[in-house]
Formats: sequence, structure tokens, C-alpha cells
Amino acid sequence: MFTLTHRDGAARRGVLQTAHGAIETPAFMPVGTQGAVKALTAQHLEDIGAEIILGNTYHLMLRPGDELIARRGGLHKFIGWKKPILTDSGGYQVFSLAGRRKIDENGVEFSSHLDGTAYVLTPERAVDIQANLGSDIAMVLDECPALPSTTEVIDKSLELTARWARRAREHFLERKKKSPDPFTQVQFGIVQGGTFRELRQKSAELTVSIGFEGYAIGGLSVGEPNETMYQVVADTTPLLPAGQPRYLMGVGTPIDLVEAVARGVDMFDCVLPTRNARNGQLLTSEGPLNIKNAQFAEDDGPADPACGCYTCRNFSRAYLRHLYMAGEMTGGTLNTLHNLSFYLDTMRRIREAIAFGRFEDFRQGFHQTFTRRALIS
Amino acid sequence: MFTLTHRDGAARRGVLQTAHGAIETPAFMPVGTQGAVKALTAQHLEDIGAEIILGNTYHLMLRPGDELIARRGGLHKFIGWKKPILTDSGGYQVFSLAGRRKIDENGVEFSSHLDGTAYVLTPERAVDIQANLGSDIAMVLDECPALPSTTEVIDKSLELTARWARRAREHFLERKKKSPDPFTQVQFGIVQGGTFRELRQKSAELTVSIGFEGYAIGGLSVGEPNETMYQVVADTTPLLPAGQPRYLMGVGTPIDLVEAVARGVDMFDCVLPTRNARNGQLLTSEGPLNIKNAQFAEDDGPADPACGCYTCRNFSRAYLRHLYMAGEMTGGTLNTLHNLSFYLDTMRRIREAIAFGRFEDFRQGFHQTFTRRALIS
Repeated sequence: MFTLTHRDGAARRGVLQTAHGAIETPAFMPVGTQGAVKALTAQHLEDIGAEIILGNTYHLMLRPGDELIARRGGLHKFIGWKKPILTDSGGYQVFSLAGRRKIDENGVEFSSHLDGTAYVLTPERAVDIQANLGSDIAMVLDECPALPSTTEVIDKSLELTARWARRAREHFLERKKKSPDPFTQVQFGIVQGGTFRELRQKSAELTVSIGFEGYAIGGLSVGEPNETMYQVVADTTPLLPAGQPRYLMGVGTPIDLVEAVARGVDMFDCVLPTRNARNGQLLTSEGPLNIKNAQFAEDDGPADPACGCYTCRNFSRAYLRHLYMAGEMTGGTLNTLHNLSFYLDTMRRIREAIAFGRFEDFRQGFHQTFTRRALIS
Repeated sequence: MFTLTHRDGAARRGVLQTAHGAIETPAFMPVGTQGAVKALTAQHLEDIGAEIILGNTYHLMLRPGDELIARRGGLHKFIGWKKPILTDSGGYQVFSLAGRRKIDENGVEFSSHLDGTAYVLTPERAVDIQANLGSDIAMVLDECPALPSTTEVIDKSLELTARWARRAREHFLERKKKSPDPFTQVQFGIVQGGTFRELRQKSAELTVSIGFEGYAIGGLSVGEPNETMYQVVADTTPLLPAGQPRYLMGVGTPIDLVEAVARGVDMFDCVLPTRNARNGQLLTSEGPLNIKNAQFAEDDGPADPACGCYTCRNFSRAYLRHLYMAGEMTGGTLNTLHNLSFYLDTMRRIREAIAFGRFEDFRQGFHQTFTRRALIS
């Protein structure tokens, strides 16, 4: 159940209701690949106000296995997270296994990166796995072609993705009909089409004609220029039903989030804030900073003077640098807490700006403050 | 200021007052080698009720450097920990650098394990470094001979340790006299003497004759049999002033803590709970368990059914095993939280048992429950 509460230009504010609670949109979803957001506990995620996290079907199906998780009562219970979870279909990771996967009409065969075991992932199997995981939002299996690519390749690929989407939807609805228990999971379709406007349009029409509870824009942030990505998003969102949530997969930098919201996107996920945290890059209101730089060795200020997170309230850049240089896991935890706080705070500010009809002001201001430091750092 | 509040046989309960608050004894001090207890934040330590942590002078003098920490306002401020800190003298780590250190009457020359830089650590320098760190309890520099060793070697070594202790005390009192600010640090002497009763007695007499605010028993838990260690502790504690705290350095297993308390020890530190946590060994009321064992793959119970820590309240053995197998840092954090909670809970139970004159009952019960599982695991 998605309710739009405010519009400001193409930007939208809303509330997505799920069986595990409400998500205010635009929303950022921290990535918990293997059933944990790296370096954090569930308590940390609650403390920073995360309303939804993402789990990776590919990783979880291999280890510990979706059947095992089902026997534990589902992913929420297994990982001790009571709020909403979105699971991807596993497709993106499988298609990254160049040389270890074979695709045909039925689905994709691949060998595990862990032990080489052979697996088959089909549109139906991706539905079943995510039913075992019991996520609140499930994604259809899509083909993710590498960019750049020819129109022929992308066209053929989006048609396969659409046929898979139809099979996935039918299987999902079949499971729902037969389910003895209340069936609360919803399913999102995925629009592909590379960077070609007509192909995005074709994919959007095919996907929307099947009918899902929400729509994702996939296949972006894979190396194309930012402006290209923004253009694809701008071209695609008007083709999606206004009353349903729109999710831009795997995106992105703080600037990307602001720019995609400006083009009508409601949901995001990205490993950038968590991965960069572990690599010592802190995202701040003044832009990114690399905590390993010698200039921070005696800097008693917080990572971000404008941030009220646990890390910024209690620890200096000098200490964070020391932890990084010393290889202390605690540094990864404190940096991750900050970076995710920065992302979630940014989403809060975005939502507030939309509610007050001041999103364009916010956007201009964000460009001025966030990017300035990026240039001098 | 140390106040004994209860005695039960040789076991003692008391309160040690420091400039950063009170420590109830018998106390266990989590080890924060490089200015962080590995995998935890200061908030975690407060949540589990840690009243004091240990910092390692050797590691901190090399990186980020004690002068840098002094410029930050001292170790408490630098690491964001408001409660008491004990720092060791650096001696133990330096003497572990076999082949990279040279000892003479003046002190010890060594090269850093980080970059080979040459350093000299003298009794006076160890005092100065710990003054820079601003710990609540500072330790004197001692020589830590390897065991087993001959009486001649140990005798010569404890005499050097005693001469160093006198220099350290004189330097400490000199600094205290000259300090323009309130000087709240206290200094503990260290009794050496290997496993020889007469040499422990000689070292205790020499050290006590100098006069410190507390006394440590050093040079144990370095490979000697448990019973030998217990005997040395039993022989040494009666030689120390009854009204001052006694600290058994680097010890030990949960059983070791109980046995040493039974012989009159008040304070402990050990990396065992934190290091083993990261290696997947959980200490529980029923004994240790190795979470990587396949038997836990579908075990929905908590790590320790008798434990009320965050980890045990919220997560199953199955999830902890998954995190360990997947190499997730979150597993290290949750395991560390549990193991330290188990240690601190054990100390609480010890203190309560002493207060009620039931320590011997507690001790017998602890042996029955803790060791049983160790045998079958």
C-alpha cells in the first residue's frame, strides 16, 4: 500500500506500508548482503532510524541457504530485524559471475563463488527463494546486460527480462492464491533498456502491462556517465504508474540520490556508504573526506560538524584516523554508523523539503555544500 | 582509594575509587590494546557495564604516539571513554619482541614491530608515557622473563625489576610533586619471581618495601600449568598489603578468575574473551562452544540460555554461526559483546557470592556447570 502525501515538481513524498511497518519515502535502504549490514548490529540500524534494509538473494541462497532460513521462520526472525526487508532477485550478482554462468530462456545456470556448486536460477525459483526468505518486497529476476551495448543486444535482453517478469508474476500470484497463511509479500518489476530512451520506454510498457506493486529501474550505475543515468531516470519515471513506488537499484552517491528524487524516484539502495566507510571515506555535509589523510591526525573536530550521529557526538577525526590506521574493526563500525546516518539524514531532509515545497532550494544548496569539499579533498 | 567491604575466606570484595569513578572488585578489565576494545564501541562497553578498561602502552606509544594523545587531552578524551583506564607499562609486549630488543640496567632498547623505528623504554620513560596517556592506574616497567627458567635467571631478573620499580616510583612521585594540576594517577608495582616460592616472596618484599597504591602479580599465565599458577598466587597474595588492590596480570579463563579470587586477587585483564569471540569461541554458563561447529547450523537457541546480553536476547546460535561462516564483522561484534558480558556477569556473581558469604558454594557450582560442557564440546 503506497500513499503519496506530497509532490514538489517531479519529486514525491509518500509512505509505503508493509507487513513489518511503514517506510517513509524517498527512502534509502542500507545493504545487508549476507543478513547483516556490514560492521553494524540491528540495534545500530534502529538507532540511526533505518526503516528498511536490503538482503541479497544470491548470497543468502548459497549461504546459509533459503530453506534453512525458512526453517528458522524467515529472514526477519533469523537476523533479528523487525522492520521491512527488500530482497533482490539474485540476478545482478549472478550476471556479474562472468564465465561462471550460462543463460537461456529458462533461466541462468551458475556455479557458486564459494565452492563451485552448480545452481539454476529461474524466474520461478527466484520467487520461491524470496518467499522462503519472507521479505516484504521481492524483486523479479531480470537480465542485467553490461553497458555499453548495442540496441540489438539490449532489446533482446529486455524482451527476455519481460518474459521472465511475466513468469515471475504468474508464479508469485499462484503462490499467493495457494498460500494457507496471510500472504503479505509484494513484488516489484524491473525496467531495463540500457541507455536507449526507446528501449527504456518499451521495457517500461512491457513491465507495467504485467502489473506489479512497484517498479524498479535497473541496469544503471554500471559505469555510464552520471548525466546519462539522470536522463534515463527522467525519461523512465513518467512511464511508471504515479501511484506506485519507484526504486532506482544500486544508486548511488548523495548527489545521485538528490538528482534521482528530483526526477521522481522513491527508493534507493547502495553499498557506497557502508563500503566506503570501511575504506575510510566519510561522507559529510561538506563532501567526502578520506580519514587516513595525515591532515586529520590531530583534528579534534567531529567527522561532520553538522551531524548528530553517535560517531560525531563522541569521537574526533583524530581518533577515527587512528582506528583506521591501526586496522581496528571499531573504526569500521563508527565510520559506517556515520555514513549511513548521513544518508538517512539526507533522506529526511529531502522528505522535509518536499513537504514544504522547497525541494529545489534544498537541491541547489546540497550541490553547493556537498560538492565543494569533494573538490578540495 | 581502595575499600574492602567484604571478606569470604581469602576472597575479597571492595571498591577502588579513581578520578574517573569507582570500580567494584573483584573486577575484570576488557583489553583495549590500541585505544579500542576490538569490535566494540564505547557505548557497547557502557551497555555491558564495564567499569574499567585496559590500554596498552607499547601499542599506543608507537601509534598514534603518547605525545599526540596528550595533545588531544589524554587517552580518555581521545577514545571517548569516561570511566577508569589502567595502562600497562609496555614491558610485556617489548619483552615479547625476541631478537628485536636489548636489555640493560638502564632499560630496554627495541625496534617497533610497525616500521622498525628504534625506541628506548626506561622505568622513567614508562612513567612519562603513562602520564601523557593520563590513565587512572599506571604500571611500573618490569622485566618479564620467559618460563621455565633457572632460579639464577629469575632471581637476577626480579632484582632488576625491583631496581626499576624504585626508579619508577621516585620518578612518579617527583612528577606528582611538581605537577601544577591535580595529580590523580596511581601507580602499581609488579611482583615477579617465576614459579619459585622464595623468589616470589623476595620480589613481594622488595616491591612492597618501595610502596605503591596497588600490587600486581606478573609473569604468570605464560605456559606454566594452571595448578602452578594457582599455587604462586596463593603463596603471593598473603605477602601483599591487605588494604590495597591486587591485580593478576593477563589472566585468564573463567575458571582462572574464580580460582584467583579464591586466593585473594581483586583485578584481572585478559584478551581471551575478546580474541576468542572473534575466532568464534563463545564462553557460556555451560562452558565454551565453537560456533562454527555444524551442530549449531539450525540451533535457534541463544548462545547462552542463562545470559541476558544483547546478543543472547536477540540472536540465535544459527545466526551467529552464519555470520562467522560468512566472515561478517557483525559476528565479531555480537560474539565479543556476549563473551565480555559473560566475564562481567561472572564477576558480578563472584562479588555477590562474597557479599553473602557463599563464595565457596559459587566456586563449586561454577566448576560443575562451566567445565561440564568443555569436556563434551
